[in-house]
Amino acid sequence: MSTPLYFSDDLEVDMEAFVADRYSARFVLADTNTRLHAEPLAKALNAKLLVVPAGENHKNLQQAEKIWQQLLNAGADRRAVLLNLGGGMITDLGGFVAASYKRGISCIHVPSSLLAMVDAAHGSKTGINMGGVKNAIGHFYPAEAIFIHAALLDTLPLRELQSGKAEMFKHGLLGDAELWQQMTALPAAARPGRALLERAIALKTTIAAADPTEKGLRKLLNLGHTFGHAFESYFMYSSTPWLHGEAIFAGMLLEARLSNRLGLLSEADLDEIQRVLQNWQPAGKWPPLALILPWLLNDKKNHSSQVQFVLPVAIGSAVYDQAVSVADLEKWYPQLLEG
Amino acid sequence: MSTPLYFSDDLEVDMEAFVADRYSARFVLADTNTRLHAEPLAKALNAKLLVVPAGENHKNLQQAEKIWQQLLNAGADRRAVLLNLGGGMITDLGGFVAASYKRGISCIHVPSSLLAMVDAAHGSKTGINMGGVKNAIGHFYPAEAIFIHAALLDTLPLRELQSGKAEMFKHGLLGDAELWQQMTALPAAARPGRALLERAIALKTTIAAADPTEKGLRKLLNLGHTFGHAFESYFMYSSTPWLHGEAIFAGMLLEARLSNRLGLLSEADLDEIQRVLQNWQPAGKWPPLALILPWLLNDKKNHSSQVQFVLPVAIGSAVYDQAVSVADLEKWYPQLLEG
Repeated sequence: MSTPLYFSDDLEVDMEAFVADRYSARFVLADTNTRLHAEPLAKALNAKLLVVPAGENHKNLQQAEKIWQQLLNAGADRRAVLLNLGGGMITDLGGFVAASYKRGISCIHVPSSLLAMVDAAHGSKTGINMGGVKNAIGHFYPAEAIFIHAALLDTLPLRELQSGKAEMFKHGLLGDAELWQQMTALPAAARPGRALLERAIALKTTIAAADPTEKGLRKLLNLGHTFGHAFESYFMYSSTPWLHGEAIFAGMLLEARLSNRLGLLSEADLDEIQRVLQNWQPAGKWPPLALILPWLLNDKKNHSSQVQFVLPVAIGSAVYDQAVSVADLEKWYPQLLEG
Repeated sequence: MSTPLYFSDDLEVDMEAFVADRYSARFVLADTNTRLHAEPLAKALNAKLLVVPAGENHKNLQQAEKIWQQLLNAGADRRAVLLNLGGGMITDLGGFVAASYKRGISCIHVPSSLLAMVDAAHGSKTGINMGGVKNAIGHFYPAEAIFIHAALLDTLPLRELQSGKAEMFKHGLLGDAELWQQMTALPAAARPGRALLERAIALKTTIAAADPTEKGLRKLLNLGHTFGHAFESYFMYSSTPWLHGEAIFAGMLLEARLSNRLGLLSEADLDEIQRVLQNWQPAGKWPPLALILPWLLNDKKNHSSQVQFVLPVAIGSAVYDQAVSVADLEKWYPQLLEG
């Protein structure tokens, strides 16, 4: 789990130095959004470029199969390397493909979104969606290295940048009160600097390293994700899909309110959390419980008809494996929406 | 890699005792050949039965996706268990499915063919075929336990039983001269007893444990498989497909002759190997090199336009990473076919 992390100002030079002669063939995976950055990188590295359609709804088995076929057609052997340049969709999908191609080839992540830089690219999770379930199929498979090239954030749409901050707030809320404070002090449209990125990444990698396959402690990182994944899945095929981070902002808000209702979070802390998170909530009509319940119950983190939550107990502290019955959820959910 | 191995005379009783209350839900995977055995087992264990069409040509992504969908539809969580009852096709496919479902659920192999009992079920390899390449996609993913129920061999067609002996001869040839001798002494139609099974399994598991991800030593287990996989792939979609073991018998014969030609195997040992293996060769016209070369070059074990072989250097000893150029293969192959 000790994947080396590099902050790089010149991706082409630094990656060429890292890749050197360690691999039999080089492939760069990108999506239609990141191909602009991927084309010059692939050219500089003399790598073959593979491009998939952008969007979480393409993080699926059909795209994985296409990439496997392209690797097979190119004669890639088990010493090939796959460089995944993109957001969490690409690092998840590319990691998934690499984990299974000829029983595992090396992959290197170059996260291009804020969300992937501070969260998705770290911690060895790979995944694709299936049957409407996020990351239903995947592995724990470590990347060989992760390169952070912060300049990639400059071309990120503002909505994407802001969505990525959800995971940084989350890391603060669940385990680093000072990170939470620093995030609240950052102007809404500002790009976080290296110190903030490093702090948010450190929280993630420390927890993932302590519990790589999510038997316990690592579940903390799912704060905001029980409701969040359900919202994201529900809206995924709608005309107004939510970004992952937007769904997590919503999930954190509802889970803070739920925690308060269960007596686990003080009014004062809830007030502060609400004050901050209310600025970040996605617009539009939120679905009633009945419509998101299928996802709540099929969440990987659950193992019965109860729903397991991660709940904040203070700013900088959370608890996992908090079971709430469907009956209680049905009773409380309308109030959670209202605050 | 220390997967527990159980020899069981009463599968229903022994598996119920093992499974007990360790899992949230139980699934039995079988194919249309083994469903006869799987139905009563699933019933006794109160497990859901999943059945795929028999045959190596169904060890593919489409079948894996169907099983994943069935697990999702049944609400299986990450504490579910998949019991794979079948030949290597089922243990490979079921292991593949288990390795990726919700980032990995437990699986237990119940190999029903001789080949799977002594080889395929052991050593943590999972795999599906893609683009005509055997096990192009897969993982190293250990089963939670392996149950050997030798009575399953009694309903195995003779051709399947004999095919399975290929891996036992192979284990003898590459690392256990006494096993080789015992196998040559066994009548052609006889089912090997427990002592022989244990000996053949021990060779496999010892080597796999010493080198779980096949960086070196484990490559020895691919003796006979460079030519063998190519033959098997070539004939897979023909009207007369070869069984895996038949292809391995052919591969071992050609690779012994190749080893002798390279000066690595004595005439006396080659004579003995030929004397034994010639009884086991598949009938029909063997393909010319040009038609199997694509598979030889896309074999996972190769990493250039040379072909890497495992070659026997004596009865009970072999060497790996033996590179032979395509030019030399073109020159020698017709003679290898003739002996």
